[in-house]
Amino acid sequence: MPSNKQPFIRTDLAVEARDMYVKEEEQETSIKGVQSTEREESGVKLVHVSIDEQGEQAVGKKAGTYITLHTESVKKQDSSSQIAAAKILTRELQHLLKENKVKEDDVGLIVGLGNYNVTPDALGPMTLENILVTNHLFELEHEKVSSGYRPVGAISPGVMGTTGMETSDVIHGVIHTFKPDFIIAVDALASRSIERVNETIQLTDTGIHPGSGVGNKRKELSKETLGIPVLAIGVPTVVDAVTITTDTIDLLLKYFGRKWKEKDDASNRLVPSSMSFGMKKLDESDLPEEKERETILGMVGTLTDEEKRLFIQEALTSSGQNFIVTPKEVDQFMNDMASLIAQGMNAALHEAVSIENASTYSR
Amino acid sequence: MPSNKQPFIRTDLAVEARDMYVKEEEQETSIKGVQSTEREESGVKLVHVSIDEQGEQAVGKKAGTYITLHTESVKKQDSSSQIAAAKILTRELQHLLKENKVKEDDVGLIVGLGNYNVTPDALGPMTLENILVTNHLFELEHEKVSSGYRPVGAISPGVMGTTGMETSDVIHGVIHTFKPDFIIAVDALASRSIERVNETIQLTDTGIHPGSGVGNKRKELSKETLGIPVLAIGVPTVVDAVTITTDTIDLLLKYFGRKWKEKDDASNRLVPSSMSFGMKKLDESDLPEEKERETILGMVGTLTDEEKRLFIQEALTSSGQNFIVTPKEVDQFMNDMASLIAQGMNAALHEAVSIENASTYSR
Amino acid sequence: MPSNKQPFIRTDLAVEARDMYVKEEEQETSIKGVQSTEREESGVKLVHVSIDEQGEQAVGKKAGTYITLHTESVKKQDSSSQIAAAKILTRELQHLLKENKVKEDDVGLIVGLGNYNVTPDALGPMTLENILVTNHLFELEHEKVSSGYRPVGAISPGVMGTTGMETSDVIHGVIHTFKPDFIIAVDALASRSIERVNETIQLTDTGIHPGSGVGNKRKELSKETLGIPVLAIGVPTVVDAVTITTDTIDLLLKYFGRKWKEKDDASNRLVPSSMSFGMKKLDESDLPEEKERETILGMVGTLTDEEKRLFIQEALTSSGQNFIVTPKEVDQFMNDMASLIAQGMNAALHEAVSIENASTYSR
Amino acid sequence: MPSNKQPFIRTDLAVEARDMYVKEEEQETSIKGVQSTEREESGVKLVHVSIDEQGEQAVGKKAGTYITLHTESVKKQDSSSQIAAAKILTRELQHLLKENKVKEDDVGLIVGLGNYNVTPDALGPMTLENILVTNHLFELEHEKVSSGYRPVGAISPGVMGTTGMETSDVIHGVIHTFKPDFIIAVDALASRSIERVNETIQLTDTGIHPGSGVGNKRKELSKETLGIPVLAIGVPTVVDAVTITTDTIDLLLKYFGRKWKEKDDASNRLVPSSMSFGMKKLDESDLPEEKERETILGMVGTLTDEEKRLFIQEALTSSGQNFIVTPKEVDQFMNDMASLIAQGMNAALHEAVSIENASTYSR
Repeated sequence: MPSNKQPFIRTDLAVEARDMYVKEEEQETSIKGVQSTEREESGVKLVHVSIDEQGEQAVGKKAGTYITLHTESVKKQDSSSQIAAAKILTRELQHLLKENKVKEDDVGLIVGLGNYNVTPDALGPMTLENILVTNHLFELEHEKVSSGYRPVGAISPGVMGTTGMETSDVIHGVIHTFKPDFIIAVDALASRSIERVNETIQLTDTGIHPGSGVGNKRKELSKETLGIPVLAIGVPTVVDAVTITTDTIDLLLKYFGRKWKEKDDASNRLVPSSMSFGMKKLDESDLPEEKERETILGMVGTLTDEEKRLFIQEALTSSGQNFIVTPKEVDQFMNDMASLIAQGMNAALHEAVSIENASTYSR
Repeated sequence: MPSNKQPFIRTDLAVEARDMYVKEEEQETSIKGVQSTEREESGVKLVHVSIDEQGEQAVGKKAGTYITLHTESVKKQDSSSQIAAAKILTRELQHLLKENKVKEDDVGLIVGLGNYNVTPDALGPMTLENILVTNHLFELEHEKVSSGYRPVGAISPGVMGTTGMETSDVIHGVIHTFKPDFIIAVDALASRSIERVNETIQLTDTGIHPGSGVGNKRKELSKETLGIPVLAIGVPTVVDAVTITTDTIDLLLKYFGRKWKEKDDASNRLVPSSMSFGMKKLDESDLPEEKERETILGMVGTLTDEEKRLFIQEALTSSGQNFIVTPKEVDQFMNDMASLIAQGMNAALHEAVSIENASTYSR
Repeated sequence: MPSNKQPFIRTDLAVEARDMYVKEEEQETSIKGVQSTEREESGVKLVHVSIDEQGEQAVGKKAGTYITLHTESVKKQDSSSQIAAAKILTRELQHLLKENKVKEDDVGLIVGLGNYNVTPDALGPMTLENILVTNHLFELEHEKVSSGYRPVGAISPGVMGTTGMETSDVIHGVIHTFKPDFIIAVDALASRSIERVNETIQLTDTGIHPGSGVGNKRKELSKETLGIPVLAIGVPTVVDAVTITTDTIDLLLKYFGRKWKEKDDASNRLVPSSMSFGMKKLDESDLPEEKERETILGMVGTLTDEEKRLFIQEALTSSGQNFIVTPKEVDQFMNDMASLIAQGMNAALHEAVSIENASTYSR
Repeated sequence: MPSNKQPFIRTDLAVEARDMYVKEEEQETSIKGVQSTEREESGVKLVHVSIDEQGEQAVGKKAGTYITLHTESVKKQDSSSQIAAAKILTRELQHLLKENKVKEDDVGLIVGLGNYNVTPDALGPMTLENILVTNHLFELEHEKVSSGYRPVGAISPGVMGTTGMETSDVIHGVIHTFKPDFIIAVDALASRSIERVNETIQLTDTGIHPGSGVGNKRKELSKETLGIPVLAIGVPTVVDAVTITTDTIDLLLKYFGRKWKEKDDASNRLVPSSMSFGMKKLDESDLPEEKERETILGMVGTLTDEEKRLFIQEALTSSGQNFIVTPKEVDQFMNDMASLIAQGMNAALHEAVSIENASTYSR
């Protein structure tokens, strides 16, 4: 009877970021109360969005700063690009801490959300293993702590299936006795896009909803509820079959759309071009007009994204096949991503630590 | 430059079994040289196919016995059903050993294929951790070994990315010195169907092709090449995005096909029925006629399965998104499956061991 | 500067139990306010000691019940003896809960003390992995919980080196929000005797002092401080070189003492009897008289146990060699012990669970 | 009945090195056919001993080169000293390869001896996880391999308890098919001294005896038996209670010896100086004369080291307490040592790899 099957998917941030991102590309730049910039740096695509109270009303997203780093360094197992990404994370995190008026000697609590025993959900606990914890040193041998460090505590509150408690209750309890000046939570997320998995690092100062989605028991941890800044770092590590199929059908439309344009030679139109790996990446410009979409994919081709999702979800769910999946290289990916994030955080939290010397501090 | 990215997917058995299975349901029962039976037992669906030389010509599959156990016990984390499935595996394995004239005191070599550090590929090494190894006891203290045991050795040859060698070369080397009377190889497979993942256990006496798919270097290990029986136990543990999408599009056709039949009320036709979890599982009878398929899915609805796969594969591959994935619960699933298989094997290999007392022997 | 080297040794319980045990054998049975019994059962040596306020004054140990199970089942990797020991643990734990007026539907909090990443210190976290956690089921789907279960929550508070916080602070925080009716803490201990390592399970209702020994910051968790029963289960998993040497010098005295008695043939006296494995186990009766002890071991032979310990400690410490060690089979031992304890606890906590069906509930 | 308890202790190298070392300090420098040098470098104590055929007769040790690195960097968890030690290992290994006429493009086989599931015995398999394996790249895509690399294969042959086979048989099998030009084996050893544990790295070109000590089945792998150079890297990771006690009794003698010298004030002689951590490390000069030794330790004080060992071993063994132990920090120590060795090896084997860039290549 007792079961461990509670889903660990916390979609909020991913959904927010994705919706935000999509809209931002299309029209949001003109919305009042929403400012966004995008740039590329050392192979990392960096998107900043800030939303104020006015924007919150307009786009239905919580006011605050949302920063997205898109890096292929983990998936490609490219160590030097991972270091480059960690440096950008450090800088962005430092800015966000400053924006939230966190001072250099403020006490931080790092919360590693997720389940250590379920690898794709273990980003939080795995990151904690490489976090430089210093608070006890300040308490026990204050005079020995060199300058350039701040007090940092860390807690891995587990998940409801293994603790029997609301995760937010555990965290509230720890805050009650530890009394940090600010919090940074790290968590694995569900992705609403195949390509974001293990590629996108999301950073925000709008707080967290641990275990959100389970009932209505949302016990937000945020500046509003706690009175201290609550930052969150999230990485999509899983995706469901609905998303994979929806994304692929979209790709399929673009694929045929491009073929349509490239060739008028109808006889060749539907012949796969012998696995042309060199093909230019499909993009929005390849999406055909509605009439062509209907020819290619019938009724399904005319549905909106949201309608498609709903039908696909119902078909999969009714057959018991809406699996949530993770790339087969999950062990290596989680390991590298946790290390990247911890290095980025250690350097951001302690003036004396840099990405270059960070490995010396990892356990 | 050195890279660990060699794919670990060994599709042969999965493909064979799947093709076999599909055809068998449809028409194969009437093919000369191919015999198949199917039955349900303790919640396990059991399919036996035997192919002789004549059948090998007819269906293009190697002559031999193919046994498939389909059990949801691992996915549902149902311990007592796992025990039931292990018992059936024991019995089937015993039959297959007998069919291959393996005697009760013949020396067995268990080969755990795959990469210990990549969880979904670790079925072989993880199974080996629970295999009752006895050969050294016969060599070192023969007089102390109770009756009811046979000599069993076990080897985990690693994968090319971690050894730098062809896996078959490592195995050949070990056979060269160990000289077993028969071999049983255990391996994780890629699935050609979402629903088979972690649900299907395949058992055959047609040998293995470790690392097959990499170049033309197929170094088969089989009765033909080694002169001793080579059995293989395989479980699909991963699936690619192409398969997920192909399967889901098929489900989508059936889903709309059923809706079509159920309601003529056109206005309701395309409204998702509010996530009707109670919906009867979709099956072949729900697949609509070609004309309806075209209405629903346009050109794509008229493609054959193989054509659909090819187009989807090209669309995904050209976008760098044909990920190979595994369920997020991969740690628990692999653990339970490896335990189920090891228990089934231990009881089949040693007369004195049964599923009931098997846990006493596991490490 | 930041360091992870904080010792994880919590000696209190081990010392108490050992002192208690030694004295009990010698004279304590006659002390007012101290009652002790000892018996053997299914290969487990079971010692009960209860101390009341009067006894607390007399022997300087906290009033309460102390139960010690001594079992070789883990070291011998004997599964069926482990099951027998788990059953005895269940019964003793049930008695102790009843003695402390814990009711059948009282809410329990299981605390897994120690460091998951240091295997010999991981008894608490490893035990938690097999604890049946049910509290969330009562909260989320109360109507579905069968009778025979109680609400149980579980927390692994980490260690100061990885959290930066006093462990007792973390626990206090969790208690603050979870509000359990009783607590059971599980912890690895340091042993003051080689032979206790991985053989002795200590059970008491006198509470815990997490992280005791570090400074004066003893933040006891007990009925006195929390107002609810606090039980503790501890197993010695490590021992230091001082203890090993002190114990061995003691053995050496007994060894020569016995030889002295057995043979008067002086010429043979000091010849090792060619590793006589069949030799009867040495016991207290073999300890020679003081004069003989001096002949054998000189000045050292005349020291009290406590003096010997002090000198040995100084010699080792001054050479930087007072290592704390654990048996090389630490991985297997910790695994089996954690499983034994979790099974014993699950069956004690939930009426519907027994050792026989317990494996069904383990994760 | 089947058992996994085969001891994993392979003492040969440790014993050889230790005997060698002790003698070398005392008188060996003058022995014909034995040359030894000793120096300190970057905190690493480095001892070179070379023995020729003449020396082999004289000291009863196999002719060849023996190099010992003594570094406290792992025990002290000092990353930068670990890097310094890895660099020295690289240089020594390069010299030894050259001495053995291994050419720059010769094919190497790295053998990781030991049991992956027993942490203190897992040095070999753990080292392999960080070894840069390249052989398959030369075979599959030779043109893509940059210059500065050689073909390297790697195998972890397991232990007899998990494979049921002689480890040397498994290795012979792999050599039979892989045909390397030279071999480097990595293994955990038992120490004959407390202080060597996790501090000494032994490097030799005299081959290995995997599983030696089990019966007479010594199946040496060496230049003599295989015709190719066989190097071995060994690190003591465990120690038994006999050794701990013998070493400590020795320390105790020195300790009292020094006190004797320091003070003639008899009344203070046997008072522990309140745990004087600042005490100068005890050394050979503190060992008292025989008469004083007898006063301090009686008969035992007059025994030779070997006699002491024998008596202590008999006392412990007869009580079933001659445990083999490892420091409680075994997880961290093994991890760091395996990483140090792998880095040292990668840089020695491939011209293009250095300790500085090595982390890029680790998996």
